[in-house]
Amino acid sequence: MSPLPRIVIVGAGFGGLTAARALDGLAVDLTVVDRRNFHLFQPLLYQVATAGLNPSDVAWPVRGILSRQKNARVLLGEVTSIDATTREVLLSDGRKLAYDWLILATGATHTYFGNDQWERHAPGLKRVDDATLIRRRLLLALERAENSGDPAEQKKLMTFAIVGAGPTGVELAGAIAELSKKVLIHDFRAINTRDVRVVLVEGADRVLLSFPPTLSAFALAELEKKGVDVMLNTRVTGCDADGLSFGDGSNLDAATVLWAAGVAASPAARWLDVPADRAGRVQVLPDLGVPGHERVFVIGDTAAIVQNGKQVPGVAPAAKQQGQHVAKTIRAALAGKKSPGPFKYRDFGNLATIGRHSAVIDFGFLRMKGLIAWWLWGIAHVYFLIGARNRSLVATQWFFNYLSYSRAARLIVGTDEDYKEIR
Amino acid sequence: MSPLPRIVIVGAGFGGLTAARALDGLAVDLTVVDRRNFHLFQPLLYQVATAGLNPSDVAWPVRGILSRQKNARVLLGEVTSIDATTREVLLSDGRKLAYDWLILATGATHTYFGNDQWERHAPGLKRVDDATLIRRRLLLALERAENSGDPAEQKKLMTFAIVGAGPTGVELAGAIAELSKKVLIHDFRAINTRDVRVVLVEGADRVLLSFPPTLSAFALAELEKKGVDVMLNTRVTGCDADGLSFGDGSNLDAATVLWAAGVAASPAARWLDVPADRAGRVQVLPDLGVPGHERVFVIGDTAAIVQNGKQVPGVAPAAKQQGQHVAKTIRAALAGKKSPGPFKYRDFGNLATIGRHSAVIDFGFLRMKGLIAWWLWGIAHVYFLIGARNRSLVATQWFFNYLSYSRAARLIVGTDEDYKEIR
Repeated sequence: MSPLPRIVIVGAGFGGLTAARALDGLAVDLTVVDRRNFHLFQPLLYQVATAGLNPSDVAWPVRGILSRQKNARVLLGEVTSIDATTREVLLSDGRKLAYDWLILATGATHTYFGNDQWERHAPGLKRVDDATLIRRRLLLALERAENSGDPAEQKKLMTFAIVGAGPTGVELAGAIAELSKKVLIHDFRAINTRDVRVVLVEGADRVLLSFPPTLSAFALAELEKKGVDVMLNTRVTGCDADGLSFGDGSNLDAATVLWAAGVAASPAARWLDVPADRAGRVQVLPDLGVPGHERVFVIGDTAAIVQNGKQVPGVAPAAKQQGQHVAKTIRAALAGKKSPGPFKYRDFGNLATIGRHSAVIDFGFLRMKGLIAWWLWGIAHVYFLIGARNRSLVATQWFFNYLSYSRAARLIVGTDEDYKEIR
Repeated sequence: MSPLPRIVIVGAGFGGLTAARALDGLAVDLTVVDRRNFHLFQPLLYQVATAGLNPSDVAWPVRGILSRQKNARVLLGEVTSIDATTREVLLSDGRKLAYDWLILATGATHTYFGNDQWERHAPGLKRVDDATLIRRRLLLALERAENSGDPAEQKKLMTFAIVGAGPTGVELAGAIAELSKKVLIHDFRAINTRDVRVVLVEGADRVLLSFPPTLSAFALAELEKKGVDVMLNTRVTGCDADGLSFGDGSNLDAATVLWAAGVAASPAARWLDVPADRAGRVQVLPDLGVPGHERVFVIGDTAAIVQNGKQVPGVAPAAKQQGQHVAKTIRAALAGKKSPGPFKYRDFGNLATIGRHSAVIDFGFLRMKGLIAWWLWGIAHVYFLIGARNRSLVATQWFFNYLSYSRAARLIVGTDEDYKEIR
């Protein structure tokens, strides 16, 4: 056995990385495992998908973040299972990582509610690859419309449907409407991109369900002002290469469908063989420990924890606070001190942006909307970006995008094969 | 027939795009066709490959560049052949573009001198996809070395060979040496990236053959100072997954081999069924017209033209000047004026950078090397980048890279499959 306590963190998202940083300086042997070599600032990923930002503006190499943290090492690898008896994490290449303490921060992915065949027709937005795929589909659809002489086909190619009107769906719809109705208007000759139809489909009776109804109403009005067609109370029953079908038997012809509806936790519950809630999240103890598994914690989007009768939301601040809390718990245990006890979520507010000059913020005690909310949203996001370089690059690009209504990141990156692909 | 003269430009590189811009305002029906939706600033592509810059920093959407040029339209499409009798350009999707005037500016690609099977083991650097592929291989090789327990395998994974010591080979070698020996030194725990071996292989007796011998000698000394092993007079006879074999029977174990040796023109000569030189370039007339093909021009890396007994080099300034010249010729013809006559190449100098604080410039009448040449190189490249946004973004990133010796663009972008790939 290694002389130092071995801590393994799986996942370098907001939760895992915050935990790792909070363990800096401790006499432990810390390993952070992730499938990708970068940490992703997911809240701005929709801007990569809509050609406003670059992948590397919203991502940061994990090795770079932890390079000077002496007790930490970074492993590029994919976890396939956990052996709770021998206390080992198993990787797809056969390697095993023994742990004394284990933090699972493996996040969530999108779910199609049992209709996995919809995925190839309606990509979701969780990873960098998703964002570049969506960008490619958006831009290639317009290229194809420009080349097509058939008005029906052009109409279908110029219809973009987004399923789910949570923050991601609203942000995508607003950004695609701006891209087509403001940014690209001079770019094509055979089509008028102002004719692009952006349809936001939502099963509930309002957009942004996690916000107060007044802000939902404001967001709806703003979306419509930007030219987005919002379909509320609409259940999706089918999705294929032609578009969507709905519960009332009607159809929508759309060559591009994006999925922003369901979220499912990563398979951490399966790895540990512990009960999960409907979304696949591990039912953790009040201190974020896993029942029956000593010194094993689950944090972030993979953890289900109820506070004041409400589920702690799957947002970056909650994951970061949980990472901090688990690090504190481990520090206390290793120092032989009293445990900090149950995790308490501090809700600093809820933000969503609808597009240029328009956002909503719910601080609980205060609700903001419109221009000032939008500026606050922008400042907050630049502030939370890791590293001075990313901050200034994002700020620079936003500044130019703001002034010029241009989007220089509208490259269709990919191989010849990717260029041939549509849906 | 369209009432306006139809001009088709194939290729949106330096030559094609300059020609298109120089035809602005003319009463013509101008079409620019390219396989990609962006113009690429190739001189900085090696920085994308070595994680210093982003793809969209060195690329710019063609539609954006020409959006306000009323007489121009942009077509995303792949040319497969030309019917010189009907005067039509044929695209892979079956479309045909009729032309009255045709400008072929289709550039060049790398060649393996008849050993095409080497390509998968030794990618070249011509396109954005090449750069992201090379970046992925470089970074994944180090990740694998970190994970490997076998010293022989680690050594092989930490050996990077570059074949060809022209400007691209020298730039790649210098940048990889800096990346491993300066930027990444704190990132790994099991390996020391200072042990990375960068080997630059050249068949001739000096590096940078297109420069005067004194600058070659300076570049060689600088490369060696940066820790690059330069092998001169060395002929590559084999290339496979294990590395390179040489004319003298020896081998080099290297998991990553990059190809910067041969350049072959695009198949424009084949399309037109006209004689080509050894590198596949069309032997053009003094005015860049194609013998036997009226109102058809070939410019840039696809054109072979000799001036003052010397081949006009395949560099960006030559392509741009040729684009200007052909546009002038067409303008004169359409206006019924006298043709400007033969193309004259004005050589403004030759630049290559070896790495931080080190470059060489040959102005003909003046030769510069070292720190001042490096600053001039940087200023010139920022200046020639299209668009204020790209200029300031590249400048910002360079500023941070310069101050911090960091490279934030070191993301391994790709799918799960890409992550599994190595060679």
